[in-house]
Amino acid sequence: MKKLEEKTINTEKIYNGKVVKLQVDEVTLPNGKTSAREIIKHPGAVAIIPITKDNKIVFVEQYRKPLEKTLVEIPAGKLEAGEKPEVTAVRELEEETGYTTSNLTYVTSFYTSPGFADELMYIYMTDQLEALQENVTGDDDEFVELLELTLDEAKIYVKDQRIHDAKTNYAIMYLETLEMMK
Amino acid sequence: MKKLEEKTINTEKIYNGKVVKLQVDEVTLPNGKTSAREIIKHPGAVAIIPITKDNKIVFVEQYRKPLEKTLVEIPAGKLEAGEKPEVTAVRELEEETGYTTSNLTYVTSFYTSPGFADELMYIYMTDQLEALQENVTGDDDEFVELLELTLDEAKIYVKDQRIHDAKTNYAIMYLETLEMMK
Repeated sequence: MKKLEEKTINTEKIYNGKVVKLQVDEVTLPNGKTSAREIIKHPGAVAIIPITKDNKIVFVEQYRKPLEKTLVEIPAGKLEAGEKPEVTAVRELEEETGYTTSNLTYVTSFYTSPGFADELMYIYMTDQLEALQENVTGDDDEFVELLELTLDEAKIYVKDQRIHDAKTNYAIMYLETLEMMK
Repeated sequence: MKKLEEKTINTEKIYNGKVVKLQVDEVTLPNGKTSAREIIKHPGAVAIIPITKDNKIVFVEQYRKPLEKTLVEIPAGKLEAGEKPEVTAVRELEEETGYTTSNLTYVTSFYTSPGFADELMYIYMTDQLEALQENVTGDDDEFVELLELTLDEAKIYVKDQRIHDAKTNYAIMYLETLEMMK
């Protein structure tokens, strides 16, 4: 679809942070005019849907500073440079929940907000959880509370908007479709 | 969950753009230490799943500069200040597809990327489309191509990652659950 393409004339780098970078691209539009695109560069993220032996979903409750409130989410974290998403999935599972797994199923991937950010989110699932013998320490500025909920309980959390983010809402609906196919 | 809260010590405003704002908050963590949070402020967005009389889904193909490629998405756009999401939904439908509606069903809402952004995405659906007699002009820097696909065709687009963003992947799975309940 070449005719929709926007060609970069100039890139102004505004900010280079620990998590995000911000740049403004001056572009040529398909009609020949110019415009500016504000772009957030993000390393990408990986989430995992952990299902326990008694068919509960493991969630983490976490304070989200951009929203000034806590959300209940499936475990997730940023991709490290050069890391395979499967490795990130297991690492975040271990750090945030105290479980590990050697059995991952790929569920989907999607760009979270393609209008202004390049963040790509991968989602995996496992129903083969093993408790870790020793805690694995993760980011020292991350504080989470664990919750294990049935799918019916999780659907109430969605309704109450305590679960209220793209990857977790997607995960709940995905588990619903699996239930419906049984 | 007060014990997870992060208190703001200082806010450094980095960038104030047309679409996003970037600030870095210095915070006190639950353990008393301090950290920095990079935060993108976004006005929020609204998407609509438009279903035609012959049961096709109306999509727009659009160049996404952050990804340097086109994606096929359900119509969507940013909330204007003070605007109700239902109004945004109809406005974006009119501007991007040439259809209008007076019948909206609320589907869901979610934060697209709560780790670094406050963008809240609302999703609506309509199967009551009417063709507009005259084109409604939208943003003069937006160029889109229309596509009407059956659900089965759309699922192939998801598999091929031509459909590959949070709101649209969610919409396709939502329509699948509706089909399964028939």
